[in-house]
Amino acid sequence: MNPTITTFAWVPEFARGFVRDLRPRWAFEEVRQPYEVTLITDAKTPAHRCYQPFGQVPTYRDDDVEIFESGAIVLHIAERAGRLIPADPAGRARMMQWLISALNSVEPYVMALAINDVFEADRDWSGARHAKVVEDLHRRLADLETAFGDRDWIDGDDFTAADLMMISVLGGLRGSGQLDGFPKLAAYVARGEARPAHRKAMADHIATFDNVAA
Amino acid sequence: MNPTITTFAWVPEFARGFVRDLRPRWAFEEVRQPYEVTLITDAKTPAHRCYQPFGQVPTYRDDDVEIFESGAIVLHIAERAGRLIPADPAGRARMMQWLISALNSVEPYVMALAINDVFEADRDWSGARHAKVVEDLHRRLADLETAFGDRDWIDGDDFTAADLMMISVLGGLRGSGQLDGFPKLAAYVARGEARPAHRKAMADHIATFDNVAA
Ligand SMILES: N[C@@H](CCC(=O)N[C@@H](CS)C(=O)NCC(=O)O)C(=O)O
Ligand SMILES: N[C@@H](CCC(=O)N[C@@H](CS)C(=O)NCC(=O)O)C(=O)O
Repeated sequence: MNPTITTFAWVPEFARGFVRDLRPRWAFEEVRQPYEVTLITDAKTPAHRCYQPFGQVPTYRDDDVEIFESGAIVLHIAERAGRLIPADPAGRARMMQWLISALNSVEPYVMALAINDVFEADRDWSGARHAKVVEDLHRRLADLETAFGDRDWIDGDDFTAADLMMISVLGGLRGSGQLDGFPKLAAYVARGEARPAHRKAMADHIATFDNVAA
Repeated sequence: MNPTITTFAWVPEFARGFVRDLRPRWAFEEVRQPYEVTLITDAKTPAHRCYQPFGQVPTYRDDDVEIFESGAIVLHIAERAGRLIPADPAGRARMMQWLISALNSVEPYVMALAINDVFEADRDWSGARHAKVVEDLHRRLADLETAFGDRDWIDGDDFTAADLMMISVLGGLRGSGQLDGFPKLAAYVARGEARPAHRKAMADHIATFDNVAA
């Protein structure tokens, strides 16, 4: 049986291109693993919460494993395929460092902006707080830009699961203009999103929501 | 050579018990790996940023590997020792799922409270925003409490690197009263912090700052 992921059957326009099923989709395409998608309309049901305790998507299952967390899913797809992970222990540890950095040191700042400006836009304090959220995000991005140096990918010449995750996290800023002052990061995201595997994953991701709307 | 971690030579009283060198210290004690600590006074120097691009602690190095991110460091200590990680691939994938969940689904909410109430306490909007931050945190904790069931550890009978990370993240709420409504999580944190390895790590962590103050 092919591995299966869950995502939403429908999301509002502004969320298209950003739902995290894009991450496993991209990983599947990179390793050329065919997969199935189960569409759900409500992630807060007790049945779905058995697979995702926070009532979110995506989830993943194959013949041996049932997991949630897009970061863990991408790692599992990579490990199962024996791809996207450096073979030497030191390279592997650095891949893990950057993958976790994307999820723990960068994503909270990307999400803070979306939460403040979109989901909390109706709160009294949201407008006044915006500048501080942007300031914190920019400090993170500036540090990452400096660390990036002149490499093509985050740890050198090879695209790994860490790049897939870091570009997915930074891709959460797509269309916001927030990467404008960070040319290396902007080029890095563009380089990742130009990969055939990302294009295919994004097209399938978008088509899901289009099909349902039709 | 023993592995070495860096942490701060001094932190203010309120930060003692919370600086993230506690995580690798705990992992070292669990796997009985002797280690060295290098104390730094300024993490924002270019020299330190070579090891930690965001100018933070901890960092880790051994004869083969130099990494940052407490999550990646704990995993590396566990892998190097061949401990704290289930041997079967499915158990291993679930360990990774919970470790990443601690860092990506739980820690941002724990941090949001500390950032709002401590580091942003002087902002106009901080007081008004507090209730929303607590509401979001409590929703996360309630979901985790429900998922926890009657297990001793997050994925069953064995303490793994995922427990070390989840308890470290939830330990960020120590003393805040925020776990009071979540008896299973509170008991889980207490169970983790009662382990001899945690007690030793915490004692050494605190002693660092005491020594320097003396
Ligand atoms: N840390 C999780 C986050 C998952 C997540 O935020 N999923 C969103 C869609 S991208 C969701 O299901 N949101 C609905 C909700 O939170 O109610 C992961 O990376 O898998
Ligand atoms: N995601 C990082 C976070 C590291 C972190 O926040 N370190 C704190 C101490 S616990 C720090 O160095 N803070 C100083 C600063 O951010 O300037 C990790 O888990 O290692």
